[in-house]
Amino acid sequence: MENQKTQFPKVIIIGGGFGGLQLAKKLKNSAVEILMLDRHNYHTFQPLLYQVATGSLDSDSIAFPLRKIFQNQKNFNFRVAEVKRINPDEQYVMTDIGNFEYDYLVLATGSETNFFGQKAIEHFSMPMKTIPEALNLRSLILQNFEDALNEKNPEKKKALMTFVVVGGGPTGVETAGALAELKNHVLIRDYPELDFHFMKIYLIEGTERVLEPFSKQASKKAKEFLQNMGVIVIEKALVTQYDGEKVIYNNTESIFTKGVIWSAGVKGALIEGLDKAPIVRGGRIKTNNYNLVEGYENVFAIGDLAYMETPDWPHGHPGVAQVAIQQGQQLANNLIRIINQEVPKAFDYFDKGSMATIGRNKAVVDLRFLKFQGFIAWLTWMFIHLLFLVGFKNKLITLINWIVTYFSHDRGSRVILHKFNRQTMTEDSIAK
Amino acid sequence: MENQKTQFPKVIIIGGGFGGLQLAKKLKNSAVEILMLDRHNYHTFQPLLYQVATGSLDSDSIAFPLRKIFQNQKNFNFRVAEVKRINPDEQYVMTDIGNFEYDYLVLATGSETNFFGQKAIEHFSMPMKTIPEALNLRSLILQNFEDALNEKNPEKKKALMTFVVVGGGPTGVETAGALAELKNHVLIRDYPELDFHFMKIYLIEGTERVLEPFSKQASKKAKEFLQNMGVIVIEKALVTQYDGEKVIYNNTESIFTKGVIWSAGVKGALIEGLDKAPIVRGGRIKTNNYNLVEGYENVFAIGDLAYMETPDWPHGHPGVAQVAIQQGQQLANNLIRIINQEVPKAFDYFDKGSMATIGRNKAVVDLRFLKFQGFIAWLTWMFIHLLFLVGFKNKLITLINWIVTYFSHDRGSRVILHKFNRQTMTEDSIAK
Repeated sequence: MENQKTQFPKVIIIGGGFGGLQLAKKLKNSAVEILMLDRHNYHTFQPLLYQVATGSLDSDSIAFPLRKIFQNQKNFNFRVAEVKRINPDEQYVMTDIGNFEYDYLVLATGSETNFFGQKAIEHFSMPMKTIPEALNLRSLILQNFEDALNEKNPEKKKALMTFVVVGGGPTGVETAGALAELKNHVLIRDYPELDFHFMKIYLIEGTERVLEPFSKQASKKAKEFLQNMGVIVIEKALVTQYDGEKVIYNNTESIFTKGVIWSAGVKGALIEGLDKAPIVRGGRIKTNNYNLVEGYENVFAIGDLAYMETPDWPHGHPGVAQVAIQQGQQLANNLIRIINQEVPKAFDYFDKGSMATIGRNKAVVDLRFLKFQGFIAWLTWMFIHLLFLVGFKNKLITLINWIVTYFSHDRGSRVILHKFNRQTMTEDSIAK
Repeated sequence: MENQKTQFPKVIIIGGGFGGLQLAKKLKNSAVEILMLDRHNYHTFQPLLYQVATGSLDSDSIAFPLRKIFQNQKNFNFRVAEVKRINPDEQYVMTDIGNFEYDYLVLATGSETNFFGQKAIEHFSMPMKTIPEALNLRSLILQNFEDALNEKNPEKKKALMTFVVVGGGPTGVETAGALAELKNHVLIRDYPELDFHFMKIYLIEGTERVLEPFSKQASKKAKEFLQNMGVIVIEKALVTQYDGEKVIYNNTESIFTKGVIWSAGVKGALIEGLDKAPIVRGGRIKTNNYNLVEGYENVFAIGDLAYMETPDWPHGHPGVAQVAIQQGQQLANNLIRIINQEVPKAFDYFDKGSMATIGRNKAVVDLRFLKFQGFIAWLTWMFIHLLFLVGFKNKLITLINWIVTYFSHDRGSRVILHKFNRQTMTEDSIAK
């Protein structure tokens, strides 16, 4: 068992997402010893994953090495590790590289794709929660077009050129919009041998409108933008089957497609070893208003994983970066208070608003007292995303990419780095 | 069998490297129908692969989508295909996506890593001829340091921190230099828990000096630069064994290491189906001075793959980009002459010189009448490489990367995208 000698309390943070990052940063000058564990050595800026998948950005622009962020933070340690189990009774975490003891444990593992138990859909459709998954999707899109060139059967050719995005939340809307731009400005020029009347992009949403958590005005405008770009928007439709050939929704309707992108839901990324009692709907963990997991004294949960009821948010907070960031910051202060035997402060989410981009000059922004759409919304979206992107070089390179894309209509990052294997639905393992 | 109907002669180019690219571009307005086949959908700017491996550049910066280059070239077709065999008698190429007929065939497959038949070395060491290979090397370097943190045995810890570059040509020299900079400016800050006295970088060269094809002055200065940066340069040494633990050179000397980079040689990337007669030493194909393969009337070879004796180059040309580029351009003109039943012109290589960079402000340049080293050489190296890098955005982003790196001493792209599996010596197949 690892046993780093120190007089300071040991805080283990599992996960280097928005929440874990803020928490560790905010504890910089505090009398604690931090150990962050993540299975990747980098932080992923998830809001821009769809741009990696659709060839606008290279993967390194939205990945930031965690060690670099904390290079000058003496009380910070990091390990690339797969957490297998936590043992709250004996206060240690089991990983693939050994066990680590803690005084305080923070679960910041975020969420993972929810296929709602549908095994066939899970096998055949493309999730987009990690950079490797986004790169797989990029490969699949491009390979479908390469395959379409060689396909004689017109039905199969059409299926290769048809994409179905399931789930009309921000990720689904942004992906469908980016696919439409990819079609209109890139694919149509890259594949002059193909007839692009056959290329269809569907966005299927279960509730009565896309961007359901947004204002009605935003939903309406987003749908309008999408339709003008050629996306077929289907609302109040539940996808119940996909066997790699045919999507079935509302039990009877079907679409033949070789490309299904699944952004229909997430669930908490749970770790073994915790009591089942605090686990609520959607695999989230119930905490009190200090992010302390119910039934525990030194185990906390923040961000997407945490389910916290407050007067303003009686059914829990939305699974967005801002909640994770604010909970991470608040928990840093509360941990210090708890260590100093002071009273912690209850979390109060400050909702800065929501935004989604649909395409060039097309975005929707819902602020508390102001809602707007179109060009200004699009500029706002870009500004905010650049602001939150970690690292000066990433900001600069992303900005340049966007400027070049804006003027050239082009997307340079359409390389198939690793071939995606449709049989195994994973990438080919041997790199050449 | 694919049979595209056209009145123009069909030219198949196998390979989208420097030679194939120039040939196809130069044939833009000619009365031929071009089909390029490549197993990747992008052109790789190989001279900068070592910067991807050592975290200075992201992979997309040196990969350029082939379809994009030829978007406006009507007589150009492209397929992502693995060529299985050529059939010169019946004039077609067999691939994994079908057969393609040709009137003229150009082999532009370049070269591949030569392990000189040493199976153990091939299995355990890291080549660096493709982007996936460069990314694997990047993952290996970073994983070695992550593993070193968890390693208790001091000998094993040292082996994880020891890197041996085999082969002191430009690639080996540049990689060893980049590793030294990675150590001094990045790793030492990223891994404060490790003792960097243990980190050793060896460069082992078989001939009596590194950069053997360069001037003695360049070799001497390059060695000096490397040694000042902490690289242990061993000349006149032949590596004969590596079993994943221990490199053996000169039959008796050994180095314990978990990181061997193999840049000791290349051989022609041959395709099945050609007569054995024209194949010469190093797997190259003997051509006449018009790049026509000996014994054939309509099969050509250019670039690294071609072996052509001329008065100035009685033992063939060097395997560098400039030869491939110039042969590609020349063959385009000659093909048109041949089609028009005119007399082709003999190839005459214009040697523009050689250059290699060792590190920040440190490069060597050999021009015909001028040899210089140091800062000006380094600026020249950067300018020339930017000039030849394909695509405006790639140039711009690479330039910015270099500027940021110059001022910050940092390398941002140190993310482990796909874990490298030391057992199988391939990357893990399941992306998460």
